Amino acid sequence: MQPLNICTAQLNYHTGNFEHNTAKIISAIQQAQAQHCDLIIFSELCVCGYPPRDFLEFADFIEKSQHAVREIASHCTTIAAIVGAPSVNPVLEGKDLFNSAYFLYNGNVQQVVHKSLLPNYDIFDEYRYFEPNHEFNCIEFKGYKLAVTICEDLWNVDDNPMYRQSPMEQLKLQEPHIMINIAASPYSQKQLESRNEVMLKNVVRYEMPLLYVNMTGAQTHLIFDGGSMAINAGAEVIDRHNHFEEDTGYYQLHGRQLSVLQNHSPYTVLAPMEQIRLALITGIREYFHKQGFKQCIIGLSGGIDSALVTALAVQALGHKQVKVVLLPSEFSSHHSITDSIDMINRLDIEHTTMSIADAYASVEKALAPEFKHTEFGIAEENIQSRLRGLLLMAMSNKFGYILLNTSNKSELAVGYGTLYGDMCGGLSVIGDLYKTQVYELARHINTLNNCIPESILTKEPSAELRPNQKDSDSLPPYEVLDKILYAYIEERKSPREIMKLTSDEALVRRVLKMVNTNEWKRLQAPPVLRVSTKAFGPGRRMPIVAKYLN
Amino acid sequence: MQPLNICTAQLNYHTGNFEHNTAKIISAIQQAQAQHCDLIIFSELCVCGYPPRDFLEFADFIEKSQHAVREIASHCTTIAAIVGAPSVNPVLEGKDLFNSAYFLYNGNVQQVVHKSLLPNYDIFDEYRYFEPNHEFNCIEFKGYKLAVTICEDLWNVDDNPMYRQSPMEQLKLQEPHIMINIAASPYSQKQLESRNEVMLKNVVRYEMPLLYVNMTGAQTHLIFDGGSMAINAGAEVIDRHNHFEEDTGYYQLHGRQLSVLQNHSPYTVLAPMEQIRLALITGIREYFHKQGFKQCIIGLSGGIDSALVTALAVQALGHKQVKVVLLPSEFSSHHSITDSIDMINRLDIEHTTMSIADAYASVEKALAPEFKHTEFGIAEENIQSRLRGLLLMAMSNKFGYILLNTSNKSELAVGYGTLYGDMCGGLSVIGDLYKTQVYELARHINTLNNCIPESILTKEPSAELRPNQKDSDSLPPYEVLDKILYAYIEERKSPREIMKLTSDEALVRRVLKMVNTNEWKRLQAPPVLRVSTKAFGPGRRMPIVAKYLN
Repeated sequence: MQPLNICTAQLNYHTGNFEHNTAKIISAIQQAQAQHCDLIIFSELCVCGYPPRDFLEFADFIEKSQHAVREIASHCTTIAAIVGAPSVNPVLEGKDLFNSAYFLYNGNVQQVVHKSLLPNYDIFDEYRYFEPNHEFNCIEFKGYKLAVTICEDLWNVDDNPMYRQSPMEQLKLQEPHIMINIAASPYSQKQLESRNEVMLKNVVRYEMPLLYVNMTGAQTHLIFDGGSMAINAGAEVIDRHNHFEEDTGYYQLHGRQLSVLQNHSPYTVLAPMEQIRLALITGIREYFHKQGFKQCIIGLSGGIDSALVTALAVQALGHKQVKVVLLPSEFSSHHSITDSIDMINRLDIEHTTMSIADAYASVEKALAPEFKHTEFGIAEENIQSRLRGLLLMAMSNKFGYILLNTSNKSELAVGYGTLYGDMCGGLSVIGDLYKTQVYELARHINTLNNCIPESILTKEPSAELRPNQKDSDSLPPYEVLDKILYAYIEERKSPREIMKLTSDEALVRRVLKMVNTNEWKRLQAPPVLRVSTKAFGPGRRMPIVAKYLN
Repeated sequence: MQPLNICTAQLNYHTGNFEHNTAKIISAIQQAQAQHCDLIIFSELCVCGYPPRDFLEFADFIEKSQHAVREIASHCTTIAAIVGAPSVNPVLEGKDLFNSAYFLYNGNVQQVVHKSLLPNYDIFDEYRYFEPNHEFNCIEFKGYKLAVTICEDLWNVDDNPMYRQSPMEQLKLQEPHIMINIAASPYSQKQLESRNEVMLKNVVRYEMPLLYVNMTGAQTHLIFDGGSMAINAGAEVIDRHNHFEEDTGYYQLHGRQLSVLQNHSPYTVLAPMEQIRLALITGIREYFHKQGFKQCIIGLSGGIDSALVTALAVQALGHKQVKVVLLPSEFSSHHSITDSIDMINRLDIEHTTMSIADAYASVEKALAPEFKHTEFGIAEENIQSRLRGLLLMAMSNKFGYILLNTSNKSELAVGYGTLYGDMCGGLSVIGDLYKTQVYELARHINTLNNCIPESILTKEPSAELRPNQKDSDSLPPYEVLDKILYAYIEERKSPREIMKLTSDEALVRRVLKMVNTNEWKRLQAPPVLRVSTKAFGPGRRMPIVAKYLN
């Protein structure tokens, strides 16, 4: 048996952009061919982009994807390729599509294998579209048997497994030489570790090498770190692709021996906050690039949230593409303006200042006949926040800037933000970071590039919507709040369990009630870049009209 | 074999409100017992409310539900009951829960059967939570065998079935006397007909009577019409519960003979527009009642959309609970005000008028340094709409009114509305009605109660955000637009197929592009009351950053 030279391609795809994806895949095939590879492997659903969501329900979309697969196949003459794309279920019973890996060779589709385990939890909806696979066959190529599986297919290794079968249990009976897993596995703070563990478990269990090929880039709220890897039969990780970038790897398989054919740039282990920083930068950059947007606008308040978002936006888009607006009111403290100007100078970004005072007075006048005899309260606070949102959106509409939202996860959780005010924006950059993590990431960024003034990091948080307001007037300290929120949102603990975290039972009840009664607000929030295992958005689907815990 | 007296209970439940649901179920059990019934049947997941969504992932929620089932069981001593609730999967493999029907008798849970076919399309996410059933057993009671299935279990009757098995094919082998289907089947314009057809198909196929028990009420965007029915073995519908209300039925089963035991109020066949009217009124009423809200506020523009929403709100909440605000600008036509006042008088509702002129001038002034040398355009139009939204939200925040959104499906589809402006609101009442349907429903309402002035029905639609603006300046006539939108949204046709509907190919391309590029706006829209087979919201999940069709 001759050794097999294999290339793995960790690339960034654009959903529905068949021309772009096809061209990128063909170019990688040609490069691998020039490197004398026998086989190149791409990631899950790479032809149509991941996740295609309900575009999969359009017959025309499936036809376009099939057409793209045939075009790619025509470039696989002396080299073979494995690409991910939907395929049509040939029998009437069951759903109409499979999530498939196409084996392309000799200019044609030689074989198609389907995904068996369809994730349908958190942000995943795959059983919405796909029929699970029921037939198990290795791909045979130049004397080798390749056990090809798709993402979740290898993840059923828990003590409490989510699925009643594991496809590798079937495939191993055919005595394959290698496991190949093509994936579209999004980033979260625990994902790198989990993924490593799961892949190693498979190698140990099935005693053969593994090539794992994931995608990179981002798709609205989902960010893909890549992290493709090669593991030999001895359960050693012999190579890793770098995270959050396009990368290729070259390997040789001889029997069940997998070795590195070409060393590529050394792998960098990423500390937790650096992972998050790169993830958020990727998320911002891809949101802009894939939609053809260039410039963003941010309301800079002098607080930590807008400072962090501004720093990330500059890193993602470049300092010339970021414009900030200062929108002070009579309740803004002096340092809010001086700190903002300090930051603007450090980052060398464009800024402007607008007053909401006159507009606020006019709105007050318009409402006076109705509001007379009432006291200044939440309504008046929200008017200020909404006027700021209105001015920022006016700038967005006039000049084509995309407004970046600056809400954090703690305030989104408890509803401490104004809908149609500071909750405005095309993209929520830090909506999946608790306030304590916002500080942590800001401090990390300052170690790389000291752009956030120390006083922004040390001042007490305030919305500055009434005289001498502090977040701590209406919320517990963020260290306490974030622990309660994490236990409820990420861990889904009961009120009784959460009460063990603090002596203040009434506080727990109040916080959980705030989380539940603010679902209606979050429903209208911008898409949140997901970096946790449970982000607000499509991965957390709560009823709005419900009474649980109230 | 003695005849079996059976009661069916079509009730309205509140998600997560175990006390409320349990009390309602126990009260119905006691009434049925007083009527000498042997068995009472409730709908799917009635104990916890439907849909419970991600509350199902909270162990505490499941425990509360189990506790409620035991409490209900303790009231089933001489009468038996079938109630829907989640149950815990006793084996480690597979998902942790089943969607189950509990058979309660002798004060205890006697048997639990599970749902086999888990809908996971459109608004349904059941495979997210539940393991499909794999064991098939009839419930045996007083010599009868009851083939109990849950909603979707009976729906696999298409020529192109979505599932590879049908539970009744297994259950029929045990020779049951009757099919009992407990459901949580939401309303849509085609649902009454489909449901009828599907239930009759089952009776014809399996040659036994059927009791179908659905719920009523509404849950945010989902509206449940009920439509519970009794069909005898000869495939005659012998009784129907009325739609959009709580109702009970009393039947006798003798062998396989099903007959009506007590006639109840005569069934009213509902014309399509009357169905929609009742659905929307139910949707509004339940959104308010279940959250403890009383009063709504609406911006009344003089156009058809806000007029229709106001008429529906008055029918749902009562004229004393509806306040409207007139927010004219220099671009408002005279008839906008006179028509609104006419409508206000007809409905006898409270109103106020606020000017946005001063606030607009102040905002213009604040933006002047940036906007100088630019022309009046979309940004300025949006400022007006957002100032209206801001004033309405201020009233909402100050006095606790819930703002009703007045966007229709045609404008949501093409993005002809201002985000954070006229797209504000807690609930979108007519966001699932195309503009042509808005007219149709308004005319229908006028036949019942002549509350909408004729001139509102006949004037040309306009957003009135610049001089002499008409919708037709930027959009095709709604008759044409709505046909294109229906073909793309409901029927998911390809551009090529849709071009057959009109001679204007460029128009089709422009409209489809508008639909695709406005996903980001719809993501931040209020929840839309669903009355079609494909509503914007959780039933339509499109990528935001994508390029298909652009």
